[in-house]
Amino acid sequence: MKALVYLGPGKKAVEDRPKPVIDAATDAIVRISKTTICGTDLHILKGDVATCQPGRVLGHEGTGVIDEVGPGVTTFKPGERVLISCISACGKCEYCRKQMYSHCVSGGWILGNKIDGTQAEFVRIPHADTSLYRIPDNADEEALVMLSDILPTGFECGVLNGKVELGSTVAIVGSGPIGLAALLTARFYSPAEIIMVDLDDNRLETAKRFGATVVINSADGNAVNAIMKLTSGRGVDTAIEAVGIPATFELCEEIIAPGGTIANVGVHGVKVDLHMEHLWDRNITITTRLVDTVSTPMLLETLRSRRLDPKLLITHRFTFEQILDAYETFAHAAETRALKVIIAA
Amino acid sequence: MKALVYLGPGKKAVEDRPKPVIDAATDAIVRISKTTICGTDLHILKGDVATCQPGRVLGHEGTGVIDEVGPGVTTFKPGERVLISCISACGKCEYCRKQMYSHCVSGGWILGNKIDGTQAEFVRIPHADTSLYRIPDNADEEALVMLSDILPTGFECGVLNGKVELGSTVAIVGSGPIGLAALLTARFYSPAEIIMVDLDDNRLETAKRFGATVVINSADGNAVNAIMKLTSGRGVDTAIEAVGIPATFELCEEIIAPGGTIANVGVHGVKVDLHMEHLWDRNITITTRLVDTVSTPMLLETLRSRRLDPKLLITHRFTFEQILDAYETFAHAAETRALKVIIAA
Repeated sequence: MKALVYLGPGKKAVEDRPKPVIDAATDAIVRISKTTICGTDLHILKGDVATCQPGRVLGHEGTGVIDEVGPGVTTFKPGERVLISCISACGKCEYCRKQMYSHCVSGGWILGNKIDGTQAEFVRIPHADTSLYRIPDNADEEALVMLSDILPTGFECGVLNGKVELGSTVAIVGSGPIGLAALLTARFYSPAEIIMVDLDDNRLETAKRFGATVVINSADGNAVNAIMKLTSGRGVDTAIEAVGIPATFELCEEIIAPGGTIANVGVHGVKVDLHMEHLWDRNITITTRLVDTVSTPMLLETLRSRRLDPKLLITHRFTFEQILDAYETFAHAAETRALKVIIAA
Repeated sequence: MKALVYLGPGKKAVEDRPKPVIDAATDAIVRISKTTICGTDLHILKGDVATCQPGRVLGHEGTGVIDEVGPGVTTFKPGERVLISCISACGKCEYCRKQMYSHCVSGGWILGNKIDGTQAEFVRIPHADTSLYRIPDNADEEALVMLSDILPTGFECGVLNGKVELGSTVAIVGSGPIGLAALLTARFYSPAEIIMVDLDDNRLETAKRFGATVVINSADGNAVNAIMKLTSGRGVDTAIEAVGIPATFELCEEIIAPGGTIANVGVHGVKVDLHMEHLWDRNITITTRLVDTVSTPMLLETLRSRRLDPKLLITHRFTFEQILDAYETFAHAAETRALKVIIAA
């Protein structure tokens, strides 16, 4: 089969690989229908993710059709359409039984990281019963691909951890796909304000279209002042960090109101300065989280009932043969205005 | 009247001051019966607390007798014995109505900081109705002084924010008075382990006596390894930072389990390194808090019912004439083994 393979920092190629086989009784083999590229894949390609070694098939998002199941799989049969979760969960370990699937001792984020992923014709899914979701008959598969990672991540790590609530004031720092996913799901709770911060006017324009009440281009270094003015000097109740660099994290530290929450979503490669000399008495909370995908069943319902339209995030479509072009388009989003790209079998 | 006055970094003296007078209708004048010295007073004396200017009467803890009340005070009458809260709260502003009294717009921590404090014969208490508590008839005033600040601080900032719960594993970094107050109140929730970390064997001995299940002297730099071994490599569910320096905060970052909470109690003078490159995917929470004293009524009940014995924290007793000796004793705790000192009128 064809697969997109990471070959070390800055290097990737489409290679021929053997079709994966059932390894454990709880495995399923899935024929990929649609997949996509994540900002995390770009981090891997920069060499930022030590757990992902050269030779790995990338990708942790997608939909497909069950091709084969191991003897321990009881929920799925060959021929059924499934949504693949970016998080594999055994359902049995200490962390799974606390619904902290992200830290499953034999799963977590392993797809396209510690084991081969979804940017291929087939993928082996461990713990299939608790890591796949059956696709409803009339569901739109492109929309569903947004439920593998980006929407639960924006929602769980940003909106739930950030305690977004009715009437509250929210700032989302970073208007890329993940910031926009947080924006779309923050709207479920009807906060009073959703302030979107980015360096790119096009992305801010998109944020406005998606329901941001205020957009701020932080290129001039005046974002803190602008936000403090907007909030009568109080700051915001929730600051969602959706970039993953020190400057944006520290911006969140400066705009958080007493009693507020900074919810980190970004993947960080280096430490940040935490200004405890200003924050020790501010009654704030800071959270970090790798998505648990506990909200996936609920998000499937919001999709079915049309409370959420994840296809808003999709800007480009490619075939698997064009996957290298898809990477180029996604990696140069400032020029291409790409958000999420769909790669179809 | 006599008062202990801050005269700038490193300098203090007992001075003659005019007796305070009612300034606002909601003020009370309290004749101090007992007061104490807080680690924060030592911070002020080092020049670490910019809001506290030379000339200020120090002290934010104590008990006393109502001497006079303004016409707006309805809860207290002259002659009644009262407990003074370290936090003054108007009860009316946005923050007070959320029970975040620490950030009361005309109160918060102002006593012995922005206005004259309790280390004097008399003190003016603003917002008396919502900043004082009537002392029950049989109550022990020495024990009550521990409820002005240290016990609600250890409990709210450490135990409640840290989500200490039945069967959980707790580490308290810093076995000084505030760490010990967190220890005493953490026991309310029957965690499985309370691991106490300090550099001073005497303080660790006290911690053991107060109910720590494990004590670790971190002087040899091996505390992280010891704690990871104790927790089968998981780390602790709750890490309470009760010192206020980068080294102890970063120790908490190293020992926190996935899904755990670092609850900061220490007063910090400089920034700390937050290792987001390790923590972004660990599903942790970090909290900061200036005590709100919302738990004071509950703590008074635990005292009445003998579920809590705050007098364990009291090691030394002085008269007001000896207050400079009391400071010496408290500031040199490693030699004197002082925890809290009582200064009686």
